[in-house]
Amino acid sequence: MPTIISYVIDNQPQYGLLIDGVIHAWTGDPFTSDNFTPGPAIGTPDHVQLCPPVQPSKIVCIGRNYAAHAAEHQAEVPGEPMIFFKPPSALIAPGEPIEIPSGIGRVDHEAELAVIIKRPARRVSAQDALSYVLGYTCANDVSARVLQQKDDQWGRAKGFDTFCPLGPWITTGLDPRDVQVIGRVNGDIRQQDRTSNMVFDVPTLIAFISGIMTLLPGDVILTGTPAGVSELFDGDAVDIEIEGIGILRNPVCVIQ
Amino acid sequence: MPTIISYVIDNQPQYGLLIDGVIHAWTGDPFTSDNFTPGPAIGTPDHVQLCPPVQPSKIVCIGRNYAAHAAEHQAEVPGEPMIFFKPPSALIAPGEPIEIPSGIGRVDHEAELAVIIKRPARRVSAQDALSYVLGYTCANDVSARVLQQKDDQWGRAKGFDTFCPLGPWITTGLDPRDVQVIGRVNGDIRQQDRTSNMVFDVPTLIAFISGIMTLLPGDVILTGTPAGVSELFDGDAVDIEIEGIGILRNPVCVIQ
Repeated sequence: MPTIISYVIDNQPQYGLLIDGVIHAWTGDPFTSDNFTPGPAIGTPDHVQLCPPVQPSKIVCIGRNYAAHAAEHQAEVPGEPMIFFKPPSALIAPGEPIEIPSGIGRVDHEAELAVIIKRPARRVSAQDALSYVLGYTCANDVSARVLQQKDDQWGRAKGFDTFCPLGPWITTGLDPRDVQVIGRVNGDIRQQDRTSNMVFDVPTLIAFISGIMTLLPGDVILTGTPAGVSELFDGDAVDIEIEGIGILRNPVCVIQ
Repeated sequence: MPTIISYVIDNQPQYGLLIDGVIHAWTGDPFTSDNFTPGPAIGTPDHVQLCPPVQPSKIVCIGRNYAAHAAEHQAEVPGEPMIFFKPPSALIAPGEPIEIPSGIGRVDHEAELAVIIKRPARRVSAQDALSYVLGYTCANDVSARVLQQKDDQWGRAKGFDTFCPLGPWITTGLDPRDVQVIGRVNGDIRQQDRTSNMVFDVPTLIAFISGIMTLLPGDVILTGTPAGVSELFDGDAVDIEIEGIGILRNPVCVIQ
Protein backbone atom coordinates (compact mmCIF):
# COMPACT_ATOMS: atom_id res chain seq x y z
CA MET A 1 0.00 0.00 0.00
CA PRO A 2 1.56 3.32 -1.07
CA THR A 3 2.53 6.22 1.18
CA ILE A 4 1.62 9.51 -0.51
CA ILE A 5 3.58 12.66 0.25
CA SER A 6 3.15 16.27 -0.90
CA TYR A 7 6.14 18.47 -1.54
CA VAL A 8 7.02 21.72 -3.26
CA ILE A 9 9.21 21.88 -6.32
CA ASP A 10 9.62 25.06 -8.38
CA ASN A 11 6.97 26.65 -6.10
CA GLN A 12 4.40 24.06 -7.21
CA PRO A 13 2.90 21.45 -4.88
CA GLN A 14 3.45 17.91 -6.17
CA TYR A 15 2.37 14.46 -5.05
CA GLY A 16 5.07 11.86 -4.62
CA LEU A 17 5.41 8.34 -3.26
CA LEU A 18 7.49 7.63 -0.15
CA ILE A 19 9.36 4.33 -0.54
CA ASP A 20 11.87 3.16 2.08
CA GLY A 21 12.24 6.72 3.33
CA VAL A 22 12.88 8.24 -0.11
CA ILE A 23 10.43 10.43 -2.05
CA HIS A 24 9.86 9.32 -5.63
CA ALA A 25 8.21 11.49 -8.27
CA TRP A 26 4.68 10.37 -9.16
CA THR A 27 2.38 11.71 -11.85
CA GLY A 28 -0.85 10.30 -10.33
CA ASP A 29 -3.73 11.90 -8.47
CA PRO A 30 -4.38 10.12 -5.16
CA PHE A 31 -8.14 10.63 -5.52
CA THR A 32 -8.43 8.97 -8.93
CA SER A 33 -5.28 6.93 -9.61
CA ASP A 34 -4.74 3.23 -9.14
CA ASN A 35 -1.35 3.30 -10.78
CA PHE A 36 1.34 3.76 -8.15
CA THR A 37 4.36 3.28 -10.40
CA PRO A 38 7.11 5.46 -8.89
CA GLY A 39 9.28 7.82 -10.92
CA PRO A 40 12.82 8.95 -10.15
CA ALA A 41 14.00 9.44 -6.55
CA ILE A 42 13.73 13.08 -5.40
CA GLY A 43 15.36 12.94 -1.97
CA THR A 44 14.42 12.26 1.63
CA PRO A 45 11.57 14.19 3.34
CA ASP A 46 14.18 16.10 5.39
CA HIS A 47 15.67 17.55 2.20
CA VAL A 48 12.54 18.82 0.45
CA GLN A 49 9.91 21.37 1.42
CA LEU A 50 6.79 19.43 2.42
CA CYS A 51 3.19 20.72 2.07
CA PRO A 52 0.11 19.73 4.00
CA PRO A 53 -0.77 16.36 2.43
CA VAL A 54 -4.14 17.62 1.08
CA GLN A 55 -6.03 20.86 0.46
CA PRO A 56 -9.42 20.03 1.97
CA SER A 57 -12.75 21.74 1.30
CA LYS A 58 -13.42 21.26 5.02
CA ILE A 59 -11.79 20.01 8.19
CA VAL A 60 -14.38 18.30 10.37
CA CYS A 61 -13.32 17.92 13.99
CA ILE A 62 -14.73 15.76 16.77
CA GLY A 63 -14.74 17.01 20.36
CA ARG A 64 -14.34 14.89 23.49
CA ASN A 65 -13.82 11.56 21.72
CA TYR A 66 -11.55 10.09 24.43
CA ALA A 67 -13.18 9.82 27.84
CA ALA A 68 -10.01 10.69 29.76
CA HIS A 69 -9.60 13.97 27.80
CA ALA A 70 -13.22 14.97 28.42
CA ALA A 71 -12.66 14.33 32.11
CA GLU A 72 -9.58 16.56 32.27
CA HIS A 73 -11.82 19.43 31.13
CA GLN A 74 -14.63 18.47 33.54
CA ALA A 75 -16.79 17.69 30.49
CA GLU A 76 -19.09 14.77 29.82
CA VAL A 77 -18.56 12.38 26.92
CA PRO A 78 -21.34 13.33 24.48
CA GLY A 79 -23.99 10.78 23.52
CA GLU A 80 -23.35 11.48 19.83
CA PRO A 81 -20.21 12.80 18.13
CA MET A 82 -19.75 16.55 18.69
CA ILE A 83 -18.80 18.35 15.47
CA PHE A 84 -16.90 21.58 14.94
CA PHE A 85 -14.72 22.88 12.13
CA LYS A 86 -11.24 24.27 11.68
CA PRO A 87 -10.77 26.54 8.63
CA PRO A 88 -8.44 25.34 5.85
CA SER A 89 -6.50 28.60 6.33
CA ALA A 90 -5.19 27.11 9.60
CA LEU A 91 -3.27 24.31 7.83
CA ILE A 92 0.52 24.17 7.96
CA ALA A 93 3.02 21.58 6.77
CA PRO A 94 5.45 19.53 8.84
CA GLY A 95 8.25 21.77 10.03
CA GLU A 96 6.34 25.03 9.68
CA PRO A 97 6.04 27.08 12.87
CA ILE A 98 2.90 27.18 15.01
CA GLU A 99 2.54 30.94 15.52
CA ILE A 100 0.93 31.97 18.80
CA PRO A 101 -0.20 35.61 18.86
CA SER A 102 1.08 37.16 22.09
CA GLY A 103 -1.60 37.95 24.63
CA ILE A 104 -4.16 35.25 23.76
CA GLY A 105 -3.38 33.20 26.86
CA ARG A 106 -2.73 29.49 27.12
CA VAL A 107 -2.42 27.53 23.86
CA ASP A 108 -2.29 23.70 23.91
CA HIS A 109 -1.28 20.91 21.55
CA GLU A 110 -3.86 18.19 20.78
CA ALA A 111 -2.53 15.03 19.10
CA GLU A 112 -5.09 13.46 16.74
CA LEU A 113 -5.47 10.77 14.11
CA ALA A 114 -6.58 12.48 10.86
CA VAL A 115 -8.70 10.64 8.28
CA ILE A 116 -8.37 11.69 4.61
CA ILE A 117 -11.48 11.08 2.48
CA LYS A 118 -10.96 9.57 -1.00
CA ARG A 119 -14.34 9.87 -2.73
CA PRO A 120 -17.65 11.65 -2.15
CA ALA A 121 -19.42 10.17 0.87
CA ARG A 122 -23.05 10.97 1.60
CA ARG A 123 -25.07 8.92 4.06
CA VAL A 124 -22.73 5.96 4.01
CA SER A 125 -23.01 3.11 6.51
CA ALA A 126 -20.38 2.37 9.14
CA GLN A 127 -19.92 -0.98 7.43
CA ASP A 128 -18.95 0.68 4.12
CA ALA A 129 -17.25 3.73 5.63
CA LEU A 130 -13.60 2.69 5.37
CA SER A 131 -13.93 2.21 1.60
CA TYR A 132 -14.33 6.01 1.36
CA VAL A 133 -10.96 6.62 3.06
CA LEU A 134 -7.77 7.36 1.15
CA GLY A 135 -5.57 7.07 4.21
CA TYR A 136 -4.45 8.55 7.50
CA THR A 137 -2.04 11.12 8.82
CA CYS A 138 -1.18 12.99 12.04
CA ALA A 139 -2.81 16.26 13.07
CA ASN A 140 -2.32 18.78 15.84
CA ASP A 141 -5.60 20.49 16.79
CA VAL A 142 -3.85 23.50 18.35
CA SER A 143 -6.29 25.21 20.71
CA ALA A 144 -6.27 28.57 22.48
CA ARG A 145 -7.66 27.31 25.76
CA VAL A 146 -8.56 30.64 27.40
CA LEU A 147 -10.47 31.79 24.31
CA GLN A 148 -12.10 28.37 23.99
CA GLN A 149 -13.51 28.72 27.49
CA LYS A 150 -14.47 32.35 26.97
CA ASP A 151 -16.25 31.99 23.61
CA ASP A 152 -19.35 29.86 23.40
CA GLN A 153 -18.28 28.51 20.00
CA TRP A 154 -14.75 27.35 19.25
CA GLY A 155 -14.27 29.01 15.84
CA ARG A 156 -11.78 31.56 17.17
CA ALA A 157 -9.93 29.38 19.67
CA LYS A 158 -9.18 26.68 17.12
CA GLY A 159 -9.18 28.78 13.94
CA PHE A 160 -5.99 30.87 14.08
CA ASP A 161 -3.62 30.67 11.12
CA THR A 162 -1.06 27.85 11.72
CA PHE A 163 -3.29 26.09 14.30
CA CYS A 164 -3.70 22.94 12.15
CA PRO A 165 -0.38 21.20 11.48
CA LEU A 166 -1.06 18.16 9.26
CA GLY A 167 1.25 15.43 7.97
CA PRO A 168 3.89 14.24 7.41
CA TRP A 169 2.28 12.07 4.67
CA ILE A 170 -0.76 9.91 3.94
CA THR A 171 -0.42 6.29 4.98
CA THR A 172 -2.84 4.07 3.07
CA GLY A 173 -3.88 0.60 4.19
CA LEU A 174 -3.65 1.44 7.89
CA ASP A 175 -6.13 -0.29 10.20
CA PRO A 176 -7.29 2.66 12.38
CA ARG A 177 -8.89 0.55 15.09
CA ASP A 178 -6.00 0.25 17.53
CA VAL A 179 -2.97 2.42 16.89
CA GLN A 180 -1.03 4.45 19.44
CA VAL A 181 -1.34 8.26 19.39
CA ILE A 182 1.41 10.24 21.11
CA GLY A 183 1.82 13.97 21.76
CA ARG A 184 5.33 14.99 22.75
CA VAL A 185 6.80 18.40 23.63
CA ASN A 186 10.59 18.81 23.51
CA GLY A 187 10.90 15.03 23.68
CA ASP A 188 8.65 14.56 26.75
CA ILE A 189 5.56 12.44 26.23
CA ARG A 190 2.45 14.40 27.31
CA GLN A 191 -0.31 12.46 25.54
CA GLN A 192 -0.34 8.71 24.93
CA ASP A 193 -3.37 6.61 24.22
CA ARG A 194 -4.71 4.15 21.64
CA THR A 195 -7.45 4.73 19.06
CA SER A 196 -9.21 1.69 20.52
CA ASN A 197 -10.15 4.04 23.38
CA MET A 198 -12.07 6.42 21.13
CA VAL A 199 -15.68 6.87 22.22
CA PHE A 200 -16.76 6.77 18.53
CA ASP A 201 -14.49 4.82 16.17
CA VAL A 202 -13.54 5.92 12.65
CA PRO A 203 -16.30 4.03 10.77
CA THR A 204 -18.91 5.37 13.20
CA LEU A 205 -17.62 8.93 12.73
CA ILE A 206 -17.68 8.72 8.92
CA ALA A 207 -21.22 7.31 8.96
CA PHE A 208 -22.39 10.00 11.39
CA ILE A 209 -20.76 12.95 9.61
CA SER A 210 -21.76 11.78 6.11
CA GLY A 211 -25.36 11.55 7.32
CA ILE A 212 -25.20 15.32 7.87
CA MET A 213 -22.87 16.68 5.21
CA THR A 214 -21.33 15.31 2.03
CA LEU A 215 -17.65 14.50 2.54
CA LEU A 216 -15.56 15.35 -0.54
CA PRO A 217 -12.22 14.02 -1.81
CA GLY A 218 -9.45 15.48 0.33
CA ASP A 219 -11.72 16.37 3.23
CA VAL A 220 -10.14 15.76 6.62
CA ILE A 221 -11.66 14.39 9.82
CA LEU A 222 -9.80 15.04 13.08
CA THR A 223 -10.89 12.25 15.39
CA GLY A 224 -10.37 13.83 18.80
CA THR A 225 -7.48 13.98 21.26
CA PRO A 226 -6.41 11.84 24.23
CA ALA A 227 -5.82 13.18 27.73
CA GLY A 228 -2.62 15.04 28.57
CA VAL A 229 -2.90 18.25 26.57
CA SER A 230 -0.40 20.83 27.78
CA GLU A 231 0.64 24.40 27.16
CA LEU A 232 2.98 25.37 24.35
CA PHE A 233 5.71 28.01 24.76
CA ASP A 234 7.96 29.96 22.42
CA GLY A 235 10.79 27.74 21.24
CA ASP A 236 9.06 24.41 21.92
CA ALA A 237 9.09 21.58 19.40
CA VAL A 238 5.87 19.55 19.37
CA ASP A 239 5.59 16.07 17.86
CA ILE A 240 2.46 14.15 17.02
CA GLU A 241 3.41 10.52 16.47
CA ILE A 242 1.00 7.84 15.34
CA GLU A 243 1.92 4.19 15.18
CA GLY A 244 2.13 2.99 11.59
CA ILE A 245 2.23 6.54 10.17
CA GLY A 246 5.15 8.60 11.48
CA ILE A 247 5.92 11.86 13.24
CA LEU A 248 4.53 15.35 12.56
CA ARG A 249 6.94 17.88 14.12
CA ASN A 250 6.42 21.64 14.31
CA PRO A 251 8.29 24.35 16.17
CA VAL A 252 6.37 26.91 18.23
CA CYS A 253 6.92 30.65 18.17
CA VAL A 254 5.13 33.59 19.74
CA ILE A 255 4.39 36.46 17.34
CA GLN A 256 3.41 40.06 18.02
CA MET B 1 -20.82 49.45 -9.88
CA PRO B 2 -21.40 46.01 -11.48
CA THR B 3 -23.66 43.26 -10.20
CA ILE B 4 -21.96 39.87 -10.62
CA ILE B 5 -24.04 36.74 -11.09
CA SER B 6 -23.07 33.06 -11.40
CA TYR B 7 -24.98 30.74 -13.67
CA VAL B 8 -24.61 27.35 -15.29
CA ILE B 9 -24.27 26.89 -19.02
CA ASP B 10 -23.34 23.54 -20.59
CA ASN B 11 -22.88 22.22 -17.03
CA GLN B 12 -20.13 24.79 -16.38
CA PRO B 13 -20.43 27.60 -13.84
CA GLN B 14 -19.89 31.03 -15.43
CA TYR B 15 -19.72 34.57 -14.16
CA GLY B 16 -21.96 37.12 -15.80
CA LEU B 17 -23.00 40.73 -15.26
CA LEU B 18 -26.58 41.61 -14.33
CA ILE B 19 -27.66 44.80 -16.09
CA ASP B 20 -31.23 46.10 -15.85
CA GLY B 21 -32.44 42.62 -14.88
CA VAL B 22 -30.73 40.85 -17.78
CA ILE B 23 -27.67 38.60 -17.47
CA HIS B 24 -24.86 39.44 -19.88
CA ALA B 25 -21.96 37.13 -20.62
CA TRP B 26 -18.67 38.27 -19.08
CA THR B 27 -15.22 36.78 -19.48
CA GLY B 28 -13.72 38.39 -16.37
CA ASP B 29 -12.81 37.01 -12.97
CA PRO B 30 -14.42 39.06 -10.18
CA PHE B 31 -11.36 38.62 -7.95
CA THR B 32 -8.86 40.02 -10.45
CA SER B 33 -10.76 41.93 -13.17
CA ASP B 34 -11.33 45.63 -13.43
CA ASN B 35 -12.85 45.36 -16.90
CA PHE B 36 -16.62 45.04 -16.62
CA THR B 37 -17.43 45.24 -20.33
CA PRO B 38 -20.55 43.14 -20.83
CA GLY B 39 -20.92 40.54 -23.59
CA PRO B 40 -24.14 39.37 -25.24
CA ALA B 41 -27.39 39.13 -23.27
CA ILE B 42 -28.05 35.61 -21.95
CA GLY B 43 -31.53 35.95 -20.44
CA THR B 44 -33.14 36.90 -17.15
CA PRO B 45 -32.16 35.22 -13.86
CA ASP B 46 -35.50 33.38 -13.87
CA HIS B 47 -34.62 31.66 -17.13
CA VAL B 48 -31.15 30.34 -16.33
CA GLN B 49 -29.84 27.97 -13.69
CA LEU B 50 -28.09 30.06 -11.04
CA CYS B 51 -25.17 28.86 -8.87
CA PRO B 52 -24.08 30.07 -5.47
CA PRO B 53 -22.27 33.33 -6.35
CA VAL B 54 -18.89 32.06 -5.06
CA GLN B 55 -17.15 28.83 -4.02
CA PRO B 56 -15.55 29.88 -0.74
CA SER B 57 -12.65 28.21 1.04
CA LYS B 58 -14.54 28.98 4.26
CA ILE B 59 -17.83 30.42 5.48
CA VAL B 60 -17.23 32.38 8.69
CA CYS B 61 -20.40 33.00 10.71
CA ILE B 62 -21.08 35.41 13.55
CA GLY B 63 -23.47 34.43 16.33
CA ARG B 64 -25.73 36.78 18.29
CA ASN B 65 -24.88 39.95 16.36
CA TYR B 66 -28.32 41.56 16.78
CA ALA B 67 -29.30 42.13 20.41
CA ALA B 68 -32.99 41.31 19.84
CA HIS B 69 -32.11 37.89 18.36
CA ALA B 70 -29.78 37.04 21.25
CA ALA B 71 -32.61 37.95 23.62
CA GLU B 72 -35.11 35.66 21.90
CA HIS B 73 -32.76 32.76 22.71
CA GLN B 74 -32.17 33.99 26.28
CA ALA B 75 -28.54 34.57 25.34
CA GLU B 76 -26.27 37.50 26.12
CA VAL B 77 -24.72 39.63 23.44
CA PRO B 78 -21.03 38.59 23.48
CA GLY B 79 -18.33 41.14 24.29
CA GLU B 80 -16.43 40.15 21.15
CA PRO B 81 -17.74 38.61 17.92
CA MET B 82 -18.56 34.90 18.33
CA ILE B 83 -17.22 32.85 15.42
CA PHE B 84 -18.41 29.53 14.04
CA PHE B 85 -18.26 27.95 10.59
CA LYS B 86 -20.64 26.44 8.07
CA PRO B 87 -19.06 23.93 5.66
CA PRO B 88 -18.98 24.85 1.93
CA SER B 89 -20.85 21.59 1.27
CA ALA B 90 -23.95 23.27 2.75
CA LEU B 91 -24.15 25.88 -0.05
CA ILE B 92 -27.09 25.94 -2.42
CA ALA B 93 -28.14 28.35 -5.16
CA PRO B 94 -31.26 30.50 -5.33
CA GLY B 95 -34.23 28.25 -6.10
CA GLU B 96 -32.64 25.03 -4.88
CA PRO B 97 -34.56 23.24 -2.11
CA ILE B 98 -33.59 23.40 1.56
CA GLU B 99 -33.76 19.70 2.45
CA ILE B 100 -34.71 18.97 6.06
CA PRO B 101 -33.99 15.39 7.12
CA SER B 102 -37.09 14.06 8.84
CA GLY B 103 -36.77 13.51 12.55
CA ILE B 104 -34.20 16.21 13.36
CA GLY B 105 -36.77 18.47 15.02
CA ARG B 106 -37.32 22.16 14.52
CA VAL B 107 -35.37 23.87 11.72
CA ASP B 108 -35.40 27.68 11.37
CA HIS B 109 -34.53 30.27 8.74
CA GLU B 110 -32.00 32.98 9.62
CA ALA B 111 -31.80 35.98 7.26
CA GLU B 112 -28.28 37.43 7.03
CA LEU B 113 -26.20 39.91 5.08
CA ALA B 114 -23.29 38.01 3.51
CA VAL B 115 -19.95 39.69 2.80
CA ILE B 116 -17.83 38.36 -0.09
CA ILE B 117 -14.05 38.90 0.30
CA LYS B 118 -12.13 40.10 -2.78
CA ARG B 119 -8.44 39.77 -1.84
CA PRO B 120 -6.39 38.14 0.90
CA ALA B 121 -7.00 39.88 4.22
CA ARG B 122 -4.74 39.27 7.21
CA ARG B 123 -4.74 41.55 10.21
CA VAL B 124 -6.41 44.43 8.42
CA SER B 125 -7.74 47.47 10.28
CA ALA B 126 -11.43 48.33 10.48
CA GLN B 127 -10.56 51.52 8.63
CA ASP B 128 -9.18 49.59 5.62
CA ALA B 129 -11.55 46.62 5.88
CA LEU B 130 -14.10 47.53 3.22
CA SER B 131 -11.37 47.74 0.57
CA TYR B 132 -11.04 43.93 0.93
CA VAL B 133 -14.71 43.37 0.06
CA LEU B 134 -15.89 42.39 -3.40
CA GLY B 135 -19.56 42.86 -2.57
CA TYR B 136 -22.59 41.61 -0.69
CA THR B 137 -25.34 39.05 -1.10
CA CYS B 138 -28.15 37.43 0.89
CA ALA B 139 -27.69 34.29 3.00
CA ASN B 140 -29.94 31.97 4.95
CA ASP B 141 -28.13 30.44 7.93
CA VAL B 142 -30.55 27.51 8.19
CA SER B 143 -30.31 26.05 11.70
CA ALA B 144 -31.58 22.82 13.28
CA ARG B 145 -32.65 24.38 16.55
CA VAL B 146 -33.13 21.21 18.63
CA LEU B 147 -29.70 19.89 17.64
CA GLN B 148 -28.16 23.33 18.21
CA GLN B 149 -29.39 23.29 21.78
CA LYS B 150 -28.44 19.65 22.30
CA ASP B 151 -24.91 19.81 20.90
CA ASP B 152 -22.36 21.97 22.65
CA GLN B 153 -20.89 23.04 19.29
CA TRP B 154 -23.02 24.05 16.28
CA GLY B 155 -21.20 22.12 13.55
CA ARG B 156 -24.03 19.61 13.13
CA ALA B 157 -27.01 21.93 13.62
CA LYS B 158 -25.80 24.40 11.00
CA GLY B 159 -23.80 22.06 8.77
CA PHE B 160 -26.38 19.90 6.95
CA ASP B 161 -26.22 19.79 3.15
CA THR B 162 -28.47 22.59 1.73
CA PHE B 163 -28.41 24.61 4.99
CA CYS B 164 -26.61 27.58 3.39
CA PRO B 165 -28.65 29.18 0.58
CA LEU B 166 -26.57 32.05 -0.87
CA GLY B 167 -27.42 34.61 -3.55
CA PRO B 168 -29.01 35.71 -5.79
CA TRP B 169 -25.93 37.68 -6.96
CA ILE B 170 -23.09 39.88 -5.70
CA THR B 171 -23.92 43.56 -5.40
CA THR B 172 -20.79 45.69 -5.45
CA GLY B 173 -20.63 49.25 -4.19
CA LEU B 174 -23.25 48.71 -1.47
CA ASP B 175 -22.83 50.67 1.74
CA PRO B 176 -23.45 47.95 4.37
CA ARG B 177 -23.96 50.30 7.31
CA ASP B 178 -27.71 50.68 7.23
CA VAL B 179 -29.66 48.38 4.93
CA GLN B 180 -32.85 46.51 5.74
CA VAL B 181 -32.69 42.70 6.19
CA ILE B 182 -35.96 40.78 5.84
CA GLY B 183 -36.81 37.10 6.35
CA ARG B 184 -40.16 36.06 4.86
CA VAL B 185 -41.94 32.69 4.84
CA ASN B 186 -44.73 32.18 2.30
CA GLY B 187 -44.96 35.95 1.94
CA ASP B 188 -45.23 36.70 5.69
CA ILE B 189 -42.51 38.87 7.16
CA ARG B 190 -40.92 37.08 10.14
CA GLN B 191 -37.62 38.96 10.46
CA GLN B 192 -37.09 42.65 9.73
CA ASP B 193 -34.26 44.77 11.02
CA ARG B 194 -31.50 47.05 9.76
CA THR B 195 -27.76 46.37 9.66
CA SER B 196 -27.29 49.55 11.68
CA ASN B 197 -28.53 47.46 14.63
CA MET B 198 -25.68 44.97 14.37
CA VAL B 199 -23.66 44.71 17.59
CA PHE B 200 -20.43 44.56 15.51
CA ASP B 201 -20.55 46.25 12.10
CA VAL B 202 -19.00 44.89 8.91
CA PRO B 203 -15.62 46.69 9.17
CA THR B 204 -15.28 45.61 12.80
CA LEU B 205 -16.05 41.99 11.87
CA ILE B 206 -13.51 41.92 9.03
CA ALA B 207 -10.82 43.42 11.26
CA PHE B 208 -11.61 40.96 14.07
CA ILE B 209 -11.76 37.85 11.87
CA SER B 210 -8.70 38.76 9.80
CA GLY B 211 -6.75 39.19 13.04
CA ILE B 212 -7.33 35.47 13.66
CA MET B 213 -7.41 33.83 10.24
CA THR B 214 -6.45 34.92 6.73
CA LEU B 215 -9.54 35.66 4.64
CA LEU B 216 -9.13 34.53 1.03
CA PRO B 217 -10.78 35.66 -2.22
CA GLY B 218 -14.33 34.29 -2.31
CA ASP B 219 -14.53 33.67 1.42
CA VAL B 220 -17.92 34.50 2.90
CA ILE B 221 -18.81 36.16 6.20
CA LEU B 222 -22.36 35.70 7.49
CA THR B 223 -22.98 38.69 9.73
CA GLY B 224 -25.66 37.35 12.07
CA THR B 225 -29.44 37.31 12.04
CA PRO B 226 -32.14 39.65 13.40
CA ALA B 227 -34.90 38.57 15.77
CA GLY B 228 -37.93 36.69 14.45
CA VAL B 229 -36.50 33.35 13.37
CA SER B 230 -39.27 30.79 12.85
CA GLU B 231 -39.75 27.15 11.97
CA LEU B 232 -39.71 25.90 8.39
CA PHE B 233 -42.09 23.23 7.12
CA ASP B 234 -42.32 21.04 4.04
CA GLY B 235 -43.65 23.07 1.13
CA ASP B 236 -42.68 26.49 2.51
CA ALA B 237 -40.98 29.13 0.40
CA VAL B 238 -38.46 31.23 2.31
CA ASP B 239 -37.17 34.60 1.11
CA ILE B 240 -34.19 36.55 2.37
CA GLU B 241 -34.46 40.10 1.06
CA ILE B 242 -31.81 42.75 1.57
CA GLU B 243 -32.29 46.36 0.59
CA GLY B 244 -30.09 47.28 -2.34
CA ILE B 245 -29.33 43.63 -3.20
CA GLY B 246 -32.45 41.60 -3.97
CA ILE B 247 -34.26 38.44 -2.91
CA LEU B 248 -32.88 34.96 -2.25
CA ARG B 249 -35.79 32.48 -2.47
CA ASN B 250 -35.63 28.76 -1.69
CA PRO B 251 -38.35 26.14 -1.31
CA VAL B 252 -38.30 23.81 1.68
CA CYS B 253 -38.79 20.05 1.56
CA VAL B 254 -38.55 17.30 4.13
CA ILE B 255 -36.51 14.27 3.05
CA GLN B 256 -36.32 10.78 4.49
